[in-house]
Amino acid sequence: MESGLLMAIGGAEDKVRERVILRAFVEAAGGPDANVVVLATASELAETGDRYAGIFESLRADTVEVLRVRSREDALDAGSGVLDLLDFASGLFITGGSQLRISTALGGTAIAVTIRRRHAEGMVVAGTSAGAAILSEHMISMGDSGATPRRRLVQMAKGLGLAPELVIDQHFRQRDRLGRLVTALSYNPGPLGIGVDEDTAAVIHGGEMRVIGSGAVTVLDASGMRYTDTPEVRRGQAVSMLGLKLDFLTSGCRYDLRQRVGMPPLAGKPSIQEEEAMESARR
Amino acid sequence: MESGLLMAIGGAEDKVRERVILRAFVEAAGGPDANVVVLATASELAETGDRYAGIFESLRADTVEVLRVRSREDALDAGSGVLDLLDFASGLFITGGSQLRISTALGGTAIAVTIRRRHAEGMVVAGTSAGAAILSEHMISMGDSGATPRRRLVQMAKGLGLAPELVIDQHFRQRDRLGRLVTALSYNPGPLGIGVDEDTAAVIHGGEMRVIGSGAVTVLDASGMRYTDTPEVRRGQAVSMLGLKLDFLTSGCRYDLRQRVGMPPLAGKPSIQEEEAMESARR
Repeated sequence: MESGLLMAIGGAEDKVRERVILRAFVEAAGGPDANVVVLATASELAETGDRYAGIFESLRADTVEVLRVRSREDALDAGSGVLDLLDFASGLFITGGSQLRISTALGGTAIAVTIRRRHAEGMVVAGTSAGAAILSEHMISMGDSGATPRRRLVQMAKGLGLAPELVIDQHFRQRDRLGRLVTALSYNPGPLGIGVDEDTAAVIHGGEMRVIGSGAVTVLDASGMRYTDTPEVRRGQAVSMLGLKLDFLTSGCRYDLRQRVGMPPLAGKPSIQEEEAMESARR
Repeated sequence: MESGLLMAIGGAEDKVRERVILRAFVEAAGGPDANVVVLATASELAETGDRYAGIFESLRADTVEVLRVRSREDALDAGSGVLDLLDFASGLFITGGSQLRISTALGGTAIAVTIRRRHAEGMVVAGTSAGAAILSEHMISMGDSGATPRRRLVQMAKGLGLAPELVIDQHFRQRDRLGRLVTALSYNPGPLGIGVDEDTAAVIHGGEMRVIGSGAVTVLDASGMRYTDTPEVRRGQAVSMLGLKLDFLTSGCRYDLRQRVGMPPLAGKPSIQEEEAMESARR
């Protein structure tokens, strides 16, 4: 059995015009047969879940449900109703807000276990903003802005772990987060760093990542790093790192996650229609 | 004959405490035998040249002169007095301000020709902020901030050309300039991109770069770039670039400019005293 497609969305995706990204999620989850579940635990706003539900209904998913999990209490008390919804879902959408709200609410609960199991069984999972960060195993939980690495620029926490080999950051260009992603990889250069701009998604499936949306995905491969002084420098001080690889991918560009190499669009940039067709064909 | 040592300083270098960078410049220019000339054309402030002159005098250079070249008129009218000072100088210091003020004032004049000739003969040249940018042949003249490349994020102009294979940017971390450096290399990935933080210097000599100061030097090698869509995208749109190499160097780290590979400090980070000794030994 193959794990489901993952979509890491950088936040602020178009919700009113073409809705390329949200449409691609519904398509990947089955289009008119999609059974979508929305998890809005990250958000402090009660209406966030319902807003997305409305969008997915207008995009003609078959069924759309919002999980009523707003706190750790909710998560611990969650009965078979919530777990059944996840068992039935073909696509899970995780909204933005604070990724620590998700990890503190869901960590170690049956809901987290069920999400991982269902994703391994093929359920599509998309997350936007905090919902993208939480897909990581080693998650960026907090940090400061800036383009270059500094000691303690970033704080890590355990995420949902659907993308164990990736550290995913979001609002990337808009909030100037390259430095905190680089700093995270200086601690352990094993995972691949993925920085997703707003209104942009990294679509991950079958060992390949593909970019859709209006911005870029920055890919940072530190696995060949030859040197860093990150264990030695003082708080706030600049960190050295030698031997990193960097790619900037825009719509249609692909990345081979096994070989760790970027690839140009197949034949020029695909149109929105082509992207949708590719997305459908992939299912 | 070997070209003189170059120092590209990211701006805001310490002028009142240890003065590691300005001290290293005087040392490289001959220490107690240094004949220092200050070029303050970049600055709109009349006192900038004299302020640096006072510092270099207090650091015990033998002679210190400020070139009276504040405009293109001054540069065109410059008589043998100015050129003689350059012929006599062992070290030229170019202050900050606007690099376009320097390039528009000096471009095509005998002063620019003399600076290039004297540097080729061994004169040490240091520039801070705009004075660092102007060392490039292909110079970043203006641009916007941001960590990732966008169409028209950066404007280029011809610089002094003392570092023909480098594109040097400054105030790098503080003004969030990785994106504009990357964008500049998307136009032509031949030169090496060098982003220098404030209170930090890239010291370039004999095919090697070494870092001193409190920040970092970001090195971007796009020569292996396999793909970009920079000719096609619209103004302000995100640009794709595949196959870049990235190094973050802090004090003591080195970079082989011929092999294009970063190297850690020789044996831990050198102390200020060790750095000065290395600098002296190099002369």
